[in-house]
Amino acid sequence: MIAELISVGTELLLGNIVNTNANYLARKCAELGITNYYQISVGDNEERLADVIKTALSRSDLLILTGGLGPTKDDLTKEVTANVLNKILIEDSHTKDKIKEYFNRKNYFEITENNWKQALIIEGSIVVDNLNGTAPGLIVKTEEGKIIILLPGPPNELQPMFEQDIYPYLVKLQPGILYTEMIKICGIGESKVETMIQDLIDNQSNPTIAPYAKTGEVHLRITASASTIKEGKTLVKPIVDELYQRFSTHIYTNKEDESLEDVVVHLLAKHNLIISTAESCTGGLLTGRLVNVPGASEVLEEGFITYSNDAKEKYLNVSHKTLETYGAVSRETAGEMARGACNFNKCSNMVDKNVCNKTSIAITGLAGPGGGTKEKPVGTVFIACMVNGHVRIEKFHFKGNRQKIRELTVINGLNVLRQSIIEEFESNLN
Amino acid sequence: MIAELISVGTELLLGNIVNTNANYLARKCAELGITNYYQISVGDNEERLADVIKTALSRSDLLILTGGLGPTKDDLTKEVTANVLNKILIEDSHTKDKIKEYFNRKNYFEITENNWKQALIIEGSIVVDNLNGTAPGLIVKTEEGKIIILLPGPPNELQPMFEQDIYPYLVKLQPGILYTEMIKICGIGESKVETMIQDLIDNQSNPTIAPYAKTGEVHLRITASASTIKEGKTLVKPIVDELYQRFSTHIYTNKEDESLEDVVVHLLAKHNLIISTAESCTGGLLTGRLVNVPGASEVLEEGFITYSNDAKEKYLNVSHKTLETYGAVSRETAGEMARGACNFNKCSNMVDKNVCNKTSIAITGLAGPGGGTKEKPVGTVFIACMVNGHVRIEKFHFKGNRQKIRELTVINGLNVLRQSIIEEFESNLN
Repeated sequence: MIAELISVGTELLLGNIVNTNANYLARKCAELGITNYYQISVGDNEERLADVIKTALSRSDLLILTGGLGPTKDDLTKEVTANVLNKILIEDSHTKDKIKEYFNRKNYFEITENNWKQALIIEGSIVVDNLNGTAPGLIVKTEEGKIIILLPGPPNELQPMFEQDIYPYLVKLQPGILYTEMIKICGIGESKVETMIQDLIDNQSNPTIAPYAKTGEVHLRITASASTIKEGKTLVKPIVDELYQRFSTHIYTNKEDESLEDVVVHLLAKHNLIISTAESCTGGLLTGRLVNVPGASEVLEEGFITYSNDAKEKYLNVSHKTLETYGAVSRETAGEMARGACNFNKCSNMVDKNVCNKTSIAITGLAGPGGGTKEKPVGTVFIACMVNGHVRIEKFHFKGNRQKIRELTVINGLNVLRQSIIEEFESNLN
Repeated sequence: MIAELISVGTELLLGNIVNTNANYLARKCAELGITNYYQISVGDNEERLADVIKTALSRSDLLILTGGLGPTKDDLTKEVTANVLNKILIEDSHTKDKIKEYFNRKNYFEITENNWKQALIIEGSIVVDNLNGTAPGLIVKTEEGKIIILLPGPPNELQPMFEQDIYPYLVKLQPGILYTEMIKICGIGESKVETMIQDLIDNQSNPTIAPYAKTGEVHLRITASASTIKEGKTLVKPIVDELYQRFSTHIYTNKEDESLEDVVVHLLAKHNLIISTAESCTGGLLTGRLVNVPGASEVLEEGFITYSNDAKEKYLNVSHKTLETYGAVSRETAGEMARGACNFNKCSNMVDKNVCNKTSIAITGLAGPGGGTKEKPVGTVFIACMVNGHVRIEKFHFKGNRQKIRELTVINGLNVLRQSIIEEFESNLN
């Protein structure tokens, strides 16, 4: 099945918004095994939109239109689609009720006349309820057996509607299903990951492995074409097992929706650990990522942003001599920052004689643009973690601008922390 | 002039990357007064790309193609464009030299044979040097007087090339110029801003005012169509003056490239101030934004991420009684956090009898999803700033999910700080 994605909205043509809908739908089509050859953005203009729909019908089997379903006169997607198909719009009482319900839920009591425009549907279409707005989705079949799907433009309406109703609808149209799992890797570069799985990729047929490079991470999507989900799982399992063999703890999750900070916060909570952070060049960004996880308050004790040497001495007990001898960006300073943040000497947190529940992470580095030397070029970063009384320090050389270096530092910092906890508390060797 | 934007690359159709190029070019076209009716994404496929180019030539005056100029066999944009125009590719010795230079600069000594593919240009085209990569841009005129511009896909190559060479080229093609200025407003909601300028918008002809809502901010773009830049400036000035009259210090900059954190760091530096931060619900995000500004180390003393009540007491001297009586999310706690972060009682930073150079910002709030009550619903945030010994505390009710509430808190925090500094040090009333 060949799909064409049509994004409707003058705001796209003026560059007011980035077209994330096309990206989202393209990813979903790829997941579903639906081919996508063209993506079109067109304005809220009757003639040009009609042209685009006609062209798409001549070359594609499935048209997904987003946007232009709003209550104003500018919103034309339904009207134009109906015209092209020689169909009329009729009022749908179910949708009218849903709109009333939505307004009641939101405590908006004045429904203006133009809101009822959203209760009009193309005759013969399947109505898809919108749980997050007032424009329903529509699925229309043409006489030639082609399918046109109309979806609202706002991503917070489109995406839940797609996940809940459109995705299952499309799965049924496909011969069999595509079952996919995601393996997320951190701490190994993209090219090394690719080398390490080259033989698997060379010999793949079903399932397939597709690597996606993200900043500081590599994600591997394993996709099996099967007749049932159970069969898909069975096909995917040996590949996933093999990847765990090869990448071991470099894999931080096999869950599509789980982020690195989610994993770290859950690991801390699982082992009843609390954490203090000490950040220099990242200035709070790593802690900000941890706090993104709901429930972070259970594990986060405090954070220190010690950008100046004074602050490193005052709050983290880094010795003046260490800073003078080795500099603020050094293995030694990172280690003392981690110890200081953990406040290990005064630790009253020994829950039994072998385990301390206080952990820390410390970051010091040169994000640039200035300040680099031959020995310590811009991008030099030391990350130290103290877990269960043991300090582990790693040195990195990141490439890129200030922003990129800080992003890579945060991701690798979270990963060093994750691996330190696993080594202390989950390794079979202990 | 009507432009059509064509993005070439199978990675767009698979949803591996978001099409930010189309957004960037659409904004630039709007700035230049060039109309954009269609944006197309198409894969690296000879037949379909040729079709897209032919269709675009039939309905648009200017085609901007991005991507597909790389060294591999997959990259077809130049070849297909030449074919459609019945032109041939010829080797360009200037480009060949530039590629050699680029590889030398990067210390890559092995240039593979396929790199020389990038030195091939469409006969009769204008070559645009690529300072950040090896694929040159090309400008081709058709016999019918239409213009096709081919640009490399990576944004870090495309954007500098566009700013430096393509933008000036397009300006010359337009009858007259478009001169624009940007006014950035924080601390007033979108609908209030629109109401406050409704009369200006109703009466506008040249220049025009276009509002853009950003998270927590509103940007107003003032655009004059003129025959020279000088004339443009003269046309725009009375509107900008009027906007300053109406929005006063809610305008944080009139510079296109200046961010709110840039303004705050520059204000602190200008008045020889140093700052300490104390963040609870934002967990370091505000400090992380400050540290984004090169030179932040000159003004940032230290930051405290005091997520727990214990940490608020220990590091910021918030009294146990205050926390018990009013709660962690309260006007009282925010004020004590700001005083504690500023460490005013022990302040040795009085540079003269009227001025203290130590400042602070403190944030405490409920980002959710849990923890809300009727009195203090999720989204309640207190922001306190201490500047020159005076504490100013503001209460906010932000709407949205956890992520959105934290973003809005950071932006409004930066803005409260900015306004506190201006009131203390720049207000005419002092």
